[in-house]
Amino acid sequence: MITVQGLVATQSHQGEWVSREVKPPAAGEVCIRIHASGVNRADLMQLKGYYPPPPGYSDLLGLECAGVIESVGDGVDGWKPGDAVMALLAAGGFSNRVVCDVRQLLPLPKGWDMTQGAGFMEAYSTAWLNLYRIGDLQPEERVLIYAGASGVGSAAIQLCNLMDNPVVAVVGSQEKADYCRQLGAQTTVLRDSQCWHKLQALAPFDLLLDPVAGDWLENSVSLLAMDGRLVLIGLMGGRRCELDAATILMKRIRIQGSTLRGRTVGFKGALLESMRNQLWQSIGRGQLSPVVDRVFTTEEIDKAFAWMANNSNKGKVIIVRSD
Amino acid sequence: MITVQGLVATQSHQGEWVSREVKPPAAGEVCIRIHASGVNRADLMQLKGYYPPPPGYSDLLGLECAGVIESVGDGVDGWKPGDAVMALLAAGGFSNRVVCDVRQLLPLPKGWDMTQGAGFMEAYSTAWLNLYRIGDLQPEERVLIYAGASGVGSAAIQLCNLMDNPVVAVVGSQEKADYCRQLGAQTTVLRDSQCWHKLQALAPFDLLLDPVAGDWLENSVSLLAMDGRLVLIGLMGGRRCELDAATILMKRIRIQGSTLRGRTVGFKGALLESMRNQLWQSIGRGQLSPVVDRVFTTEEIDKAFAWMANNSNKGKVIIVRSD
Repeated sequence: MITVQGLVATQSHQGEWVSREVKPPAAGEVCIRIHASGVNRADLMQLKGYYPPPPGYSDLLGLECAGVIESVGDGVDGWKPGDAVMALLAAGGFSNRVVCDVRQLLPLPKGWDMTQGAGFMEAYSTAWLNLYRIGDLQPEERVLIYAGASGVGSAAIQLCNLMDNPVVAVVGSQEKADYCRQLGAQTTVLRDSQCWHKLQALAPFDLLLDPVAGDWLENSVSLLAMDGRLVLIGLMGGRRCELDAATILMKRIRIQGSTLRGRTVGFKGALLESMRNQLWQSIGRGQLSPVVDRVFTTEEIDKAFAWMANNSNKGKVIIVRSD
Repeated sequence: MITVQGLVATQSHQGEWVSREVKPPAAGEVCIRIHASGVNRADLMQLKGYYPPPPGYSDLLGLECAGVIESVGDGVDGWKPGDAVMALLAAGGFSNRVVCDVRQLLPLPKGWDMTQGAGFMEAYSTAWLNLYRIGDLQPEERVLIYAGASGVGSAAIQLCNLMDNPVVAVVGSQEKADYCRQLGAQTTVLRDSQCWHKLQALAPFDLLLDPVAGDWLENSVSLLAMDGRLVLIGLMGGRRCELDAATILMKRIRIQGSTLRGRTVGFKGALLESMRNQLWQSIGRGQLSPVVDRVFTTEEIDKAFAWMANNSNKGKVIIVRSD
């Protein structure tokens, strides 16, 4: 067995470090010594008890990491101990070690440090999946991104920029607006009393990447073009929504719920392979790289969660291990 | 110019026969002498003033017909005067003549009379588009069909039967239930006070073909499986809806509005070509054929509209021309 130090949610919704014995890597798996981990909004939900791990996965928190392969299972080809990797996980990302399928790995790109690697997987996989696969975004189609300065928002702006899709980003402060324009957003809109008025003037959009739902949903749909897509990736505005079905029908709108964590390993593997095929050259040229907002140590993890809960971040919040 | 007798909606929401001069067929077009026309719920909406023709089309009512080609424009290959055809139209289906693009045609299958041909295009194109193209239905996936005895419902049950997709059909009477089971529905559910209870017991469904929306929508979504699709094709229950976005998100539900009339001629042509490729053999074997519920004359067209408005039909309501 392998000893793992990891983070679980207590009944009082705090993070607590625990020690666990786990099976060594089976066929097709590796064990990674983790150096850095990305924090995601989903972690905050899991802490609160709203987002349990998918069936078959441990309750250890954390959805992504960067580290070095420590050992490999049978029949593992193309990966060896010592390789620097990034992993897209369903659980265990804040641990000191994690065992996962090789299909959940990508190599750490040349020139990236571990904090960048730890901030890549969730944000870019989510943005790539929902914009260019599920969202089927075509060249020059216009994109609206709520929470533009978030990890996913930052990745989405970079990807749209790379793929020639103009972006309007909605943000909570002037500082975040400046940040999003630096990343490549064509226009930014402050989330204030004039927000809907301004967005209506900028509409229609072909795709909306929506982590909000709630009482924004009906207005959100009204901003879409004919054959427009709203890809729902979060519930920051709540779960209760109203809708005008006539708009959905006459504009042939698609509303698509999308999550990544509960997808099969095969699905994740195919997604990461498509990213490696289509994005790796741009990463090599420095056109895509995670923006690391702030780095916390494992001892400061509560501060890291609070920083994200308060929407203070521009880009990714990262945990580095001191062990 | 060609003289056309056709039907328009009056300001008091009645049908009125009028005479119009229209251009003869241009390159790639034909003029059809119409023998029979299908009635659709969309005609009732257009009569009420809710469903204007797409830009560039006349205000003559009628979305489908069967007839014989009377003349052809330049460069028309594969179609000649005297050919018996079925046409998927954006306007003019109740007229005595209509000019349309050849991409909107299919040949009248051997052995079919004009009333069957007039009842094929809208129902089967709508069912095929929304189940197997937009809805991406896979073998053995389970389908829920509201208004099972309608023209589209009947076509959808036949298509699902052919493609090995089990169907549950919701209907308004025991007579319609018997009809749907004869067509191939595995199970039928009466629209009564026990309806939701019974549907919950039969859930989950992979695809719901929904002409209802309104206050059914939230319950409708709750009946879907992981990755389930609700394809919205009507508003019989009204346009105002409530939704639980958490269900949409966690089950990765897709809600897709879909209309056919406003699609480009190129889109319709590709759709009809896929139907010819994939369904024509089954039509030849008699496995697919429109159920003609009742045939009215042009003089009785108000009765035909009333018959459909009252949901009295099982299958297609057809108008035959006496001229």
